Amino acid sequence: MPATNTSAPTLAVSAEQRSAIESLMVDYVHAIDEGEYERWPMFFTEDGHYQVTGRENHARGWEAGMLLCDNRDMMIDRIYSLRKVNVWEPHTYRHIIGPTRVLECSLDGACIVVKAQTNFMCVRTMHDGEQMLFSTGRYLDDIVFEAGDGGDLPMFRSRLVITDSNRIDSVLVIPL
Amino acid sequence: MPATNTSAPTLAVSAEQRSAIESLMVDYVHAIDEGEYERWPMFFTEDGHYQVTGRENHARGWEAGMLLCDNRDMMIDRIYSLRKVNVWEPHTYRHIIGPTRVLECSLDGACIVVKAQTNFMCVRTMHDGEQMLFSTGRYLDDIVFEAGDGGDLPMFRSRLVITDSNRIDSVLVIPL
Amino acid sequence: MPATNTSAPTLAVSAEQRSAIESLMVDYVHAIDEGEYERWPMFFTEDGHYQVTGRENHARGWEAGMLLCDNRDMMIDRIYSLRKVNVWEPHTYRHIIGPTRVLECSLDGACIVVKAQTNFMCVRTMHDGEQMLFSTGRYLDDIVFEAGDGGDLPMFRSRLVITDSNRIDSVLVIPL
Repeated sequence: MPATNTSAPTLAVSAEQRSAIESLMVDYVHAIDEGEYERWPMFFTEDGHYQVTGRENHARGWEAGMLLCDNRDMMIDRIYSLRKVNVWEPHTYRHIIGPTRVLECSLDGACIVVKAQTNFMCVRTMHDGEQMLFSTGRYLDDIVFEAGDGGDLPMFRSRLVITDSNRIDSVLVIPL
Repeated sequence: MPATNTSAPTLAVSAEQRSAIESLMVDYVHAIDEGEYERWPMFFTEDGHYQVTGRENHARGWEAGMLLCDNRDMMIDRIYSLRKVNVWEPHTYRHIIGPTRVLECSLDGACIVVKAQTNFMCVRTMHDGEQMLFSTGRYLDDIVFEAGDGGDLPMFRSRLVITDSNRIDSVLVIPL
Repeated sequence: MPATNTSAPTLAVSAEQRSAIESLMVDYVHAIDEGEYERWPMFFTEDGHYQVTGRENHARGWEAGMLLCDNRDMMIDRIYSLRKVNVWEPHTYRHIIGPTRVLECSLDGACIVVKAQTNFMCVRTMHDGEQMLFSTGRYLDDIVFEAGDGGDLPMFRSRLVITDSNRIDSVLVIPL
């Protein structure tokens, strides 16, 4: 009996789409890790959804998460506050992501929607050089391909960050 | 003098095979990390071999490892015990794997065997949210392609988990 | 507004080149992690440049880093010393790297130069089994394709290791 693939994509994902999704994943973490926070909202569609939640809350279907942005404007506001207020002790993130697993690919109107999952590990470095394993978990994403200048660009319509621990720092200033 | 590739594959691995191997690698860790332990034995052939051993033991050729399953039935038993006994403090894993390096590809009868190596890092999260870097090391795999419904599916004929530290928790309940 | 790609390659990178770059990245970390230090200089061109520097120093344009090798012979010397002197407490590394992002691809004479960025995380294991998160950061690379026996092989003309923390062990004996 072969390993049953419980998550066969309903539509085939092309090699070009897969490669574009991989670029999206790596661009996203590099933007955050390099402190280019203003780029962060641009990885989402205008009505994009971003949420951080704990593994157990997610398993119980509790949608009340630690952090929620319901559209791109909220994300832009969030980054604006982050730059403006600046009361937090300076720190940076470093994400390592594993390979992305496509769970499903379907049509929503004329729009291709790819559901995908990616493991991550995030290390936080404080200004004084102290480092800690900050968070681990997985991204559960709805990715859509929207027409752009250079062809179809993938963006997050929804990015759910499911952290393994609920003990995450409540002052989650930088997006995960 | 160019970087000498000491591990050139003897047979070429096709892009389809490489992509199938990458899917196997990521499906495996996602199944474990999401607690779908019953899926774990299904990534192996019926006579599949799974072993966890320390780096130094492996280097010395000591095959006595920390954990050994000699076939898929033993793996199924193991997961059954894990679910049944349940005396261990609940915890979950999160694996981050690096890219897979194909070391060799050869024919064994009519069967294609790919020897491959993949680095991993595994973080453990306890029920109370406490996290620790649990293990790092590499997977050394023999992967075979067996005929399935949807074409040839790769499975582990042998997965050797070589941990960098010998100080691993002896109560290794969840497979790495 | 789509996610602006601020780093579009000027030349297209072929699928073969991308795959060769991925192999270079993974071979490099496997060589180090498996203690095959003599292979390390061979990933560089003869005039290859290797430098480790802290994130803040790099951001300020301070090129004085923690470790510098200006050509392959210096790297060979370095490995020779590492093997010879051997006063350091034995330890090994384990690198996990994320996907590589191509920032730029251009022609330098007849030579294709790919500028690329890759996140890494490195765990150190001491001889007694103790492990610690040793370093995180990114590789910023200039990769060139040089003619070899089996076609064009990618090598580092420059590898800049930018660590997130400045608090790295000054006795950096093994290359990162």
